[in-house]
Amino acid sequence: MSNGDIFLGETIGTAILILFGAGVCAAVTLRFSKARAAGWVVIAFGWGFAVLAGAYTAAPLSGGHLNPAVTVGVAVDTGAWDKVPVYVSGQMVGAFVGAVLAWLTYYAQFAANADAQHATPTLGIFSTAPEIRNPVANLTTEVIATVALVLPILAFGRNNGIGIGQIPGLDAGIYGSGISVLLVSFLVVGIGLSLGGPTGYAINPARDLGPRIAHAVLPIPNKGTSDWGYAWIPVAGPLIGGVLAGVVFNLVF
Amino acid sequence: MSNGDIFLGETIGTAILILFGAGVCAAVTLRFSKARAAGWVVIAFGWGFAVLAGAYTAAPLSGGHLNPAVTVGVAVDTGAWDKVPVYVSGQMVGAFVGAVLAWLTYYAQFAANADAQHATPTLGIFSTAPEIRNPVANLTTEVIATVALVLPILAFGRNNGIGIGQIPGLDAGIYGSGISVLLVSFLVVGIGLSLGGPTGYAINPARDLGPRIAHAVLPIPNKGTSDWGYAWIPVAGPLIGGVLAGVVFNLVF
Amino acid sequence: MSNGDIFLGETIGTAILILFGAGVCAAVTLRFSKARAAGWVVIAFGWGFAVLAGAYTAAPLSGGHLNPAVTVGVAVDTGAWDKVPVYVSGQMVGAFVGAVLAWLTYYAQFAANADAQHATPTLGIFSTAPEIRNPVANLTTEVIATVALVLPILAFGRNNGIGIGQIPGLDAGIYGSGISVLLVSFLVVGIGLSLGGPTGYAINPARDLGPRIAHAVLPIPNKGTSDWGYAWIPVAGPLIGGVLAGVVFNLVF
Amino acid sequence: MSNGDIFLGETIGTAILILFGAGVCAAVTLRFSKARAAGWVVIAFGWGFAVLAGAYTAAPLSGGHLNPAVTVGVAVDTGAWDKVPVYVSGQMVGAFVGAVLAWLTYYAQFAANADAQHATPTLGIFSTAPEIRNPVANLTTEVIATVALVLPILAFGRNNGIGIGQIPGLDAGIYGSGISVLLVSFLVVGIGLSLGGPTGYAINPARDLGPRIAHAVLPIPNKGTSDWGYAWIPVAGPLIGGVLAGVVFNLVF
Repeated sequence: MSNGDIFLGETIGTAILILFGAGVCAAVTLRFSKARAAGWVVIAFGWGFAVLAGAYTAAPLSGGHLNPAVTVGVAVDTGAWDKVPVYVSGQMVGAFVGAVLAWLTYYAQFAANADAQHATPTLGIFSTAPEIRNPVANLTTEVIATVALVLPILAFGRNNGIGIGQIPGLDAGIYGSGISVLLVSFLVVGIGLSLGGPTGYAINPARDLGPRIAHAVLPIPNKGTSDWGYAWIPVAGPLIGGVLAGVVFNLVF
Repeated sequence: MSNGDIFLGETIGTAILILFGAGVCAAVTLRFSKARAAGWVVIAFGWGFAVLAGAYTAAPLSGGHLNPAVTVGVAVDTGAWDKVPVYVSGQMVGAFVGAVLAWLTYYAQFAANADAQHATPTLGIFSTAPEIRNPVANLTTEVIATVALVLPILAFGRNNGIGIGQIPGLDAGIYGSGISVLLVSFLVVGIGLSLGGPTGYAINPARDLGPRIAHAVLPIPNKGTSDWGYAWIPVAGPLIGGVLAGVVFNLVF
Repeated sequence: MSNGDIFLGETIGTAILILFGAGVCAAVTLRFSKARAAGWVVIAFGWGFAVLAGAYTAAPLSGGHLNPAVTVGVAVDTGAWDKVPVYVSGQMVGAFVGAVLAWLTYYAQFAANADAQHATPTLGIFSTAPEIRNPVANLTTEVIATVALVLPILAFGRNNGIGIGQIPGLDAGIYGSGISVLLVSFLVVGIGLSLGGPTGYAINPARDLGPRIAHAVLPIPNKGTSDWGYAWIPVAGPLIGGVLAGVVFNLVF
Repeated sequence: MSNGDIFLGETIGTAILILFGAGVCAAVTLRFSKARAAGWVVIAFGWGFAVLAGAYTAAPLSGGHLNPAVTVGVAVDTGAWDKVPVYVSGQMVGAFVGAVLAWLTYYAQFAANADAQHATPTLGIFSTAPEIRNPVANLTTEVIATVALVLPILAFGRNNGIGIGQIPGLDAGIYGSGISVLLVSFLVVGIGLSLGGPTGYAINPARDLGPRIAHAVLPIPNKGTSDWGYAWIPVAGPLIGGVLAGVVFNLVF
């Protein structure tokens, strides 16, 4: 894969990921949405199928990481650290673009939020926030949830050779086949259902930071704070988790 | 594929798509339905499995497009514009037939809706309507949501050669294997969950226009308006989105 | 497949189907169940995964029909009418056994239902009942919903040769591979979500009649009527639908 | 597979299973969780995807049993009883570790539960409890639900040779391919939806006993009783069910 293909794939894939992901948060959060108050099951499946849409589109170009924590975990495993900057920069650009697309999709709903009396806080559509603000506990949650994402993904890749149904001789990056993409999507649904309760499961620095920048920049009425004081946790936690998953994987498998 | 097979496949497949799709809207909307008020998650999964049922049935005859936006996106990619009229006419006939079948399935429920005092508006069972009426915003939503449908579908097709588990040498149109149909179904669930909030996600001109004609024609008690003023948006938006997805796909992949 | 294997496979598979299917109805209906009032989405997914559990277990023995409407549809397609009696008798025995197992699973819950003042009607756990009692409309609903089940299943089988991921040279009955079982399961979820509203979607004579006999026979406190006046519709409708699907399939594919 | 690999695989896999499984119970149960009161559908899918995450990670090391009832069922089928102790000890260690990880993930939520006036009982996050306390009925429910788990899993393994899409010549334990893991995950969702109502479906001695020990040991505020009087049922029931499934499988298939 050329650096150009990687950058393009990660940009497009992460833009799709965040369009769907921020989209489902907008769908459930905003008044005048047909899915308003549709509940946590909709959030979790929405983010899972966001991964499906983004990863499968990006797979032939870049392997479809869409997440610096995955990229770092793969680098710990393979030693290919030189590709990390191009992956991560594509992911950050894509995350910002995806947030803008989600805002355009729900433009009229955001505009209707101008009514200050019934205004809904909007940051939760773009970025994560903890239910209980406690840096050590929040960081721990993000580290554990990211290990629970990246370790199985690395194992999925290793398993490719022993029975995912891949046609031998083909190479599709961390996804050996359409089945793997589906498995990762449901894994992400599972993380949302099981581990998302305390912090809203960033488990991906680009997923949180890119849309937070978009939230700060976009002309959204009554948008409220972008909460920069919390912003380091959904970056640091997933990076630590990605490295930890890579180390565990190297030790065990 | 002969023109006859394509027409037949698209007619049957789109009829099944709309039977299930209008069916789930009837199930959730009408009094005296066991699924009444079952929520947005039921709508989104219902339409996703509608695609599964219709596309897989139609696949061996026509490739299972079931959507003029997909057909147009494929034509931009392949240049095979001469097949577009037969695809689209099958899709329109099928969408009308499917709406009639959904009405027959819920015949007693529609009849019970004759009680004007408790009558439910019925157009939402057949066609889409925006939460906030704003032509530019509504059109934008439909364009973005359709790109989010057609671009991954085109990528799925391209990926067929590199690891979906397809047996080499077989040709099953845009669906390379059973896995692809499943992936597209969950993609459609995801679009519903994430991008359906503002307009109810037509993302398919035939899906909206065919049932709207059926709504105008069928003898449904207390059916209310067929809202022709909005009808052009769920036709124009998805067509623009389909072309846009084809262009982006050609540029990038 | 020997007649003995077919009978055994259909008995075990249909028993599992009804254990799960009646089970999910009990789970949602009965007081003192952790899933009480969990809604239609639980019913629909519960019956879908009931098919997954039963069909996949039965597949190597009998092909996993589990439904006289499927058996009849296959017979119209293949002409193998001589196997129909052994299939259907296995399905009927299995459906009765499965209903007994579901009753044993929820034994304490049924016992607690002895309190007449808070007693819940129990027939809905075993068999279907319409929301609006109208024989012509109810029959129409069951016919359409069964065609929507059997026609795609027959098409799935036909597709086996062109790309479901089946290893060539293997024969696993109507299910070409694990993927097909999964597709059929989600198809059944979709029928529940979309077409189950009016009659509770029997779409299977054995699924309705076997448990209805069990309901009539078992010593369930406060069980109420077994509603034999309605019992012919969920038998006749699915049989008509199965034949119709076989005829359409033969004409078109 | 060496004993070391088996122990390691079962420990890691079961730890992931319980991290997700206890996690989803915490997510739905505890105040200050974004998924609080999200309902039974979330519990059932959460445990299903817990199996997906754990089993697929463990598969290359140990085959991914994660459940003494599965291990015993396989031993009845294959006669390889000598491996049972190493499997079960890995499962018990992993279940305890997973419960600790879930507690760490929800640390701040458990801490907030120190407020005795609004304290939520916490045992249900770790272990199962019946809705109606009736040893014979509870044991029966666990036996039936475990047969409904292990019999299809054994049949899935048998089917591996006849069409799951497995590449011939590969050996991935009881999971022949990525598809099998997905099928087992949805089977577990189905058991939760259909058979979980009376006892909360342990169907796995390690899943119940390991976290119960963790509950007894961990310094959780206001944790309440660990209910040791009930603890033997979710151990004995699944073991009986696993043996029964192995015997039925040997007789029939």
